[in-house]
Amino acid sequence: MNATPTATPTHPVPAPPAGERLDDQRAAITELGDELRALVDAVVRTETPPDVLRLVTDEVRLLTGQLTGHRRVRAEIPAVDEFPGGVRMYSPVTGPGSPLAPPMRVTPGDGGMIGRCTLGIAHEGPPGYGHGGMSAMLLDEVMGWACAGAGLPGMTVSLQVRYRRPVPLETPLRVHARVTGTEGRKIFLEGSISTEEDTVVTAEAVFVTPDPDRTRALFPELRAE
Amino acid sequence: MNATPTATPTHPVPAPPAGERLDDQRAAITELGDELRALVDAVVRTETPPDVLRLVTDEVRLLTGQLTGHRRVRAEIPAVDEFPGGVRMYSPVTGPGSPLAPPMRVTPGDGGMIGRCTLGIAHEGPPGYGHGGMSAMLLDEVMGWACAGAGLPGMTVSLQVRYRRPVPLETPLRVHARVTGTEGRKIFLEGSISTEEDTVVTAEAVFVTPDPDRTRALFPELRAE
Repeated sequence: MNATPTATPTHPVPAPPAGERLDDQRAAITELGDELRALVDAVVRTETPPDVLRLVTDEVRLLTGQLTGHRRVRAEIPAVDEFPGGVRMYSPVTGPGSPLAPPMRVTPGDGGMIGRCTLGIAHEGPPGYGHGGMSAMLLDEVMGWACAGAGLPGMTVSLQVRYRRPVPLETPLRVHARVTGTEGRKIFLEGSISTEEDTVVTAEAVFVTPDPDRTRALFPELRAE
Repeated sequence: MNATPTATPTHPVPAPPAGERLDDQRAAITELGDELRALVDAVVRTETPPDVLRLVTDEVRLLTGQLTGHRRVRAEIPAVDEFPGGVRMYSPVTGPGSPLAPPMRVTPGDGGMIGRCTLGIAHEGPPGYGHGGMSAMLLDEVMGWACAGAGLPGMTVSLQVRYRRPVPLETPLRVHARVTGTEGRKIFLEGSISTEEDTVVTAEAVFVTPDPDRTRALFPELRAE
C-alpha cells in the first residue's frame, strides 16, 4: 500500500487550544476563510489589467510570508479539528476556514443528513453551472456525514452520480443523503442535490467501515480517544 | 428548466484582449493564481494566532477592494477564455488562475487524454488523502476533455467512481480517460487515477452531446463561432 503516510511532525506541535481560546481561534479562522472566499470570487470574476494583477500578486506573496507558525505536515490533524466525527475547519467542502469550500453546512434531517450551500463562480464547470465534480464532492461529503450520523463511520468505496440537469451557480442547494442498508462492513447510501424547484442530481454509494488495523494503518496520526 | 441563466451583463463588456495583450493578461492571471495557491496552502496548513489571522484578514479585504474592473455575471464567459473546447483560465480543476485548482494539466495520450496534477493539503478529505469528491472532479474533467478530443463535446450524464485505495496528497497523479464507444448522442468513457505505483481510482461515465437547441438554451452567452 503506497498510500501509508510516511510524514510525521518534525516541528514541536503546540498544545491544542481549548475552551474560549479554541472558540476564538476557530472564529478567527472563519473570518479569514470568509474574506479569502470573497477574494477568490473577485479574482475569478473580475477583469483586471495585468499591472494591477501583478501588484496584487506581490501583496499576496507578502501575506503568505506572515503565516509563520507551526506548519502541519501531510496527514497531521489540525489542533482545531475534531477527527473522527467532528469539526474539520479546513475541509474543502464544509470547512469555514477553507477558501475552496462553498462552505456547506450539514445538519441531521429527513432520515439522514442535509447539506445546504450555494456554489459560486469559482466552482464553475460549463458557463453558469457547477462543475460536475463539485456535485460529486457535495454528495460524497454529505454521504460521509450520513454514515457517521448512523454510527457507521466509513470511507467511500463506490459513488454513482446521475446528472439530471446542470446545477445552477448562485442558487441555494439542498444536498440530502441517507443510509439505505448495511451488509457486514458495507454501508449503502442514496443522495440527491435539489434546488427549490427541482432535483438536479441523484446518487448512490457504497461506503465501508475500515477494520481497526486498517484504520491505524491509514491514519497513524489519529489521536487516541 | 429552472437552470436557464437569467443573468446578462449589466456593465459594458470590454473588448476581448488579443495577441500579445492576451498572452500578457493570461500570464498575469497565472502568476496571481500561483501566489494564491501558495497562500491557500499556507492558510490551511499553518497554525497562526488569532491576532495575526485578523491582521491578515484585514489585508485580504483591502486586496479584494483593489479588483475594481468589469465583474462578469453568472454564465458570462471570461474574455480570456476559449469556450467551447479551449482555455478555461478559472476552471476549478485545470485553471491556472483558479486558487482552487491543483491545477491539472491535460494532454492527449494513451488513446484519450491524460491529466497530471498533485493534490495539496487544501484538497484533503480523510487526513493525508484527497477528498473522494476531488477524485470525481479530476476524472469528470479529463473525461470531458476526452470527449472533446474525440470531436464529441459532451456533458456528464452519469459518473461511476470506484475507490480502490485512498488517493495520497502531495504525490504526482496521472488521470487517464478515453472514449470506449458511442450510441446516438451518448458517449461512453472509462478513466482512472494512478500514482507511480498503483491504480487508486477507476471510473466509468456516460456523457451526452446536447442538440443545438438545448445548447443554446443552456448557454445563451455562447459567442457565435
